[in-house]
Amino acid sequence: MPEGGPREKLKARMLEIAEQILAREGLDGLQARRIAAQAECSVGTLYNVFRGLDDLIIHANDRTLQRLGQTLVEARDNAPDRSLEGVLLSFARAYLAFAMEHTTPWRALFEHRLSDSQQVPDWYRERQASLFALVEEVLHGTLTDDLVRRRAARALFSAVHGIVAIALDRKLSDFDARETDAQVRLVVAAAARGLAAGIASEP
Amino acid sequence: MPEGGPREKLKARMLEIAEQILAREGLDGLQARRIAAQAECSVGTLYNVFRGLDDLIIHANDRTLQRLGQTLVEARDNAPDRSLEGVLLSFARAYLAFAMEHTTPWRALFEHRLSDSQQVPDWYRERQASLFALVEEVLHGTLTDDLVRRRAARALFSAVHGIVAIALDRKLSDFDARETDAQVRLVVAAAARGLAAGIASEP
Repeated sequence: MPEGGPREKLKARMLEIAEQILAREGLDGLQARRIAAQAECSVGTLYNVFRGLDDLIIHANDRTLQRLGQTLVEARDNAPDRSLEGVLLSFARAYLAFAMEHTTPWRALFEHRLSDSQQVPDWYRERQASLFALVEEVLHGTLTDDLVRRRAARALFSAVHGIVAIALDRKLSDFDARETDAQVRLVVAAAARGLAAGIASEP
Repeated sequence: MPEGGPREKLKARMLEIAEQILAREGLDGLQARRIAAQAECSVGTLYNVFRGLDDLIIHANDRTLQRLGQTLVEARDNAPDRSLEGVLLSFARAYLAFAMEHTTPWRALFEHRLSDSQQVPDWYRERQASLFALVEEVLHGTLTDDLVRRRAARALFSAVHGIVAIALDRKLSDFDARETDAQVRLVVAAAARGLAAGIASEP
């Protein structure tokens, strides 16, 4: 098993260190020299295991996405009712709770920017797609067109993310968890009813 | 007229310089020393005219908000129809176009963060409120409760902002203006229909 090799163990150890720093300090704390020192190896070794600091950050962000994915699966399974509105609301409120609880790693998902010449790796895009697949699954009964269902899942996610991010960044007022929850519920409930009424079957 | 005084002229000149830097380079380019040099005064004078660099940035961001406000007024007046959905869509698409055209100053509105000990000035919150008032005005016929109308305006703005920001930051894929426009239309149309159907009259 390749997971048992010394290289894989070192990789796992570096990611663990990166996750701990991310949880406490956020993206600014992630420096190659510091992670290498904590993992008791050289910076050269770190750049041998990862393609660079960006690659390590993408891997650390992927861990956050995995945890978010587990949270969303639980939200789906524990939704108060199985209606489109019920499950979408459960997803949205779980997302708000996740962002409130894991604010720094959640922020890192959006703050990390690659230079224009770099591409986000396919495997990371696939991880994102696996999370959207959870939302698309719920939309299946309402939206039959694959493209529209895919679009709606991304649009709904971005809409909820916008409400959560503007609130946690205190862009319009001090953070107010109840008000943010009410805003999320208002938009998701309205959108779910509009979708159920057939809006997205339009061209 | 106080606007004609040398202090007011210098203030206007500094803001003009700040706006030009913001348009070309974004927030990172705004340094007190550089702005003072271009305005041909000392850094001490800059800190006499503004309370500090944060205060100057807030004033520069306020100019962006003023321009965004003009854009929204035009969007309202030129909406293809006067329905809730028609005017909300016109607002949302104008916001997307503004963010695409003025990306760096638009980003600065959201990237500038005060330290936890600092408060956003009341006059800036009032400017934000004046933009939301445009959206609240359109919601007046649909939502009679002041609190709910206020909440809905902020929630809808944040939702549209989320779609625009995630797209322009290339968080889920390369930027695709048509796809982003389609996502904005989908969410706003669905939400407008849900609101019209009475969702927000709930507690």
